[in-house]
Amino acid sequence: MNVVIVGIGLIGGSLARDLRSHYPEISIYGIDASDAHLKEAIELELIDGIASAKELAEADVLYISIPVDAIVHELPKLLDAINDDTLVIDAGSTKSEICRRIINHKRRRNFLASHPIAGTEFSGPSAAISGLFEGKTNIICEVEKTAFKLQERALSIFSRLGMRIRYMNPEAHDKHIAYVSHLSHISSFMLGKTVIEKEKNERDIFDMAGSGFESTVRLAKSSPAMWTPIFEQNKENVVETLDEYIQNLEDFKQKLLDDNFEGIYNEMDNTNKIKAILKGIPQNNKDR
Amino acid sequence: MNVVIVGIGLIGGSLARDLRSHYPEISIYGIDASDAHLKEAIELELIDGIASAKELAEADVLYISIPVDAIVHELPKLLDAINDDTLVIDAGSTKSEICRRIINHKRRRNFLASHPIAGTEFSGPSAAISGLFEGKTNIICEVEKTAFKLQERALSIFSRLGMRIRYMNPEAHDKHIAYVSHLSHISSFMLGKTVIEKEKNERDIFDMAGSGFESTVRLAKSSPAMWTPIFEQNKENVVETLDEYIQNLEDFKQKLLDDNFEGIYNEMDNTNKIKAILKGIPQNNKDR
Repeated sequence: MNVVIVGIGLIGGSLARDLRSHYPEISIYGIDASDAHLKEAIELELIDGIASAKELAEADVLYISIPVDAIVHELPKLLDAINDDTLVIDAGSTKSEICRRIINHKRRRNFLASHPIAGTEFSGPSAAISGLFEGKTNIICEVEKTAFKLQERALSIFSRLGMRIRYMNPEAHDKHIAYVSHLSHISSFMLGKTVIEKEKNERDIFDMAGSGFESTVRLAKSSPAMWTPIFEQNKENVVETLDEYIQNLEDFKQKLLDDNFEGIYNEMDNTNKIKAILKGIPQNNKDR
Repeated sequence: MNVVIVGIGLIGGSLARDLRSHYPEISIYGIDASDAHLKEAIELELIDGIASAKELAEADVLYISIPVDAIVHELPKLLDAINDDTLVIDAGSTKSEICRRIINHKRRRNFLASHPIAGTEFSGPSAAISGLFEGKTNIICEVEKTAFKLQERALSIFSRLGMRIRYMNPEAHDKHIAYVSHLSHISSFMLGKTVIEKEKNERDIFDMAGSGFESTVRLAKSSPAMWTPIFEQNKENVVETLDEYIQNLEDFKQKLLDDNFEGIYNEMDNTNKIKAILKGIPQNNKDR
């Protein structure tokens, strides 16, 4: 199997690791905006080399794991560069604008829109993890617009990687993911900001912060280059989640000001049911 | 050494585990509002039995790890029940109201106000972990009000447990801890609430949420019985942190509405320095 991975960072690199272990005969070539990342990916044996027009034209699978603004920009050109039997899969965290961008492309049926719910707060080829996709959900959008033969090829790969498949339309994806992923990132970034602004002396944070703080601000380590275009493309949904989140924080504050501690208790008690929900979320395998 | 632990849950139980391994000759008796917890603590060999007035009167160390409203209520009575040479330590997450409550008690010098920055989102005796305090900070307030001999006894114990000591006045403690701990818990609870309200179908959360969401809402599993009195006692500081956090979220939202994505990028880029800060925070040893 000939694979080209566009964007050989955390997601593309982790995919390369898993493909190599599941398909011993595979050849994997890479494309990346960063020469340093390409060099690193070759050194880490994630890819066999840098993809030229030849590898693109001969690819069985082209996997695109770059920031979502770059996907919108590059996807039409990549579809132009492949052959009629190439399966093109993206891994973008937004789906509506990407799907809209290529709706009339002559090779629309070569494309499968996907979003693997997998990752860490790290980035670059060195962040690539074996087994990252094992047990994780892969959301596939507009599956009916992909050629059936290529759907089968994609599902066979996802199945070997151990992924669970969920089908959704791009608008529903973007709406739900704003709540369970995009909002978490903003809450974490703004929490980090609030504390950094207040605690000018970093030593105070070191000394007083525990693992709870570490957990809630972990996502504030995430890459701005990846996240800015996600918020841009999903602006409408993200603003809606922020409105609701801010309203809930305001209500909590008002309960404090009103000395309504029974209300405070009940808020937390009701939210404790998140325990059962979190049990269902697969965790990352820590092996690299 | 004769120890009585009041509140034999996560903190008290973890202390019992470590004291047993560092002081082989120790006797540990427990007091708890829950008979079931006392029974469980005896079965887990955290304590040798239930403390009566006799064990209280003979205690070298009395450790109080119960919700902060209960500390305020019970501390004066416990100081009445000990002997003149007993060291009493609390583990409350707030310090001002506790210190104020016993400022004129005849045994004030028997008391050391402390806050170990250690814990998990779980509670009860079964949540007790060996080595929970290793490498963690223990904040001590108003040390000058504790008898010197008893300070020494406390420091010797904290040293064996591997804790780093930081001295602070109660007001400074409550102000800083509102930022690095109390706010994290509220942000997490309200994030959980926002998502649960929206995603009535829990299956959607399971399928679409990744480890990032899990991390940011982990603290929403925390005990309302423990956290309600913390927010009550530290209301003024907590409201201030909430005001600043909400303002930062509003500013972020406004940048989105203004299509100021350069501003969004810079916000995240500036907050990325949290990476260096988080490296300094000790993590829980996973062994139980």
